[in-house]
Amino acid sequence: MTTPTVTTLNEVNVSQLMETIEHIKQDPNLARFKFQAHNEWLGGGRSETTIQSFYHAGKEDDSRQEPFYLEGDEPPVLLGQNTAPNAVETVLHALASCLAVGFVYNAAAQGIEVEALEFDLEGDLDLHGFLGLSDEVRAGYENINLTYRVQADAPRQKLEELCEYVQKTSPVVDIIRNPVPLSIELEA
Amino acid sequence: MTTPTVTTLNEVNVSQLMETIEHIKQDPNLARFKFQAHNEWLGGGRSETTIQSFYHAGKEDDSRQEPFYLEGDEPPVLLGQNTAPNAVETVLHALASCLAVGFVYNAAAQGIEVEALEFDLEGDLDLHGFLGLSDEVRAGYENINLTYRVQADAPRQKLEELCEYVQKTSPVVDIIRNPVPLSIELEA
Repeated sequence: MTTPTVTTLNEVNVSQLMETIEHIKQDPNLARFKFQAHNEWLGGGRSETTIQSFYHAGKEDDSRQEPFYLEGDEPPVLLGQNTAPNAVETVLHALASCLAVGFVYNAAAQGIEVEALEFDLEGDLDLHGFLGLSDEVRAGYENINLTYRVQADAPRQKLEELCEYVQKTSPVVDIIRNPVPLSIELEA
Repeated sequence: MTTPTVTTLNEVNVSQLMETIEHIKQDPNLARFKFQAHNEWLGGGRSETTIQSFYHAGKEDDSRQEPFYLEGDEPPVLLGQNTAPNAVETVLHALASCLAVGFVYNAAAQGIEVEALEFDLEGDLDLHGFLGLSDEVRAGYENINLTYRVQADAPRQKLEELCEYVQKTSPVVDIIRNPVPLSIELEA
């Protein structure tokens, strides 16, 4: 009897990563995910989102025993109570956490050991759009700047290539840089 | 001596909202915000974002005594440990919390009392993009569907118009539907 070798790097199970890629190559349907969320307004600028299951290859994933709760609010200058970050700050978090996963998983796949990884992000927003005071000012970020610092067991050139590759394959980078079809419906 | 009248609706200070709009009309610079976030990788797919201050009209806002901490992770099927929602689930939260604020603030400005407001969201994502297995499949959401239910003191027609207006002025709707310039730099 042979025991399968489990290779772990950066706390990523590289064997499982390779197997996942092989399985998807054999059955492309395994790559299909439907993520979902439910949000309820709590008063003022406050609301709470519940996230638990999602669909993978058409089946509901039941790995999460408890839901995650995420809250949104605004600071006082935007008429809120500072009980949680606001929506556009949360976008910066989504972007950073996506790049962290992408960088670390791809580094693991390439045999690069990551010692430390951190991101600083900032986004410029002009409230004329949100307040409906100008048709020329967009409602969302005018731009987002992100810098990252990496300590890893690889030459600078290799880390730059990895950084480029991760940008191209990051779901949240794609969502931010490119249009996503979004349908919004008010239920009858 | 007269006491200024404070009008509050939907837990939104409508007087402050109107004053904010007047101030911005007089000094457009007051509409300029720079939001920021810092993220650190924790191992595997896990990372933590710290959000505290932001810049408003060039000055740092110090209203938050403590930072907010947001975590990201992946479910086991995506090689994570389910300690937090993943990045694309967090995007759904950001979208819902943005629309909640927009709907409730604009309802308050129009004198509409909101009794209940909730959102259901889902987004389809094909992992071929993230895994670099196809150049034709985008990395991000192929589409996002959102439905909302509102109980409010207004006729259906008025709520539909409000819903339309809120979509046009929502920062996160704009970020999702339209391209945002994003610069990503690896620090030397």
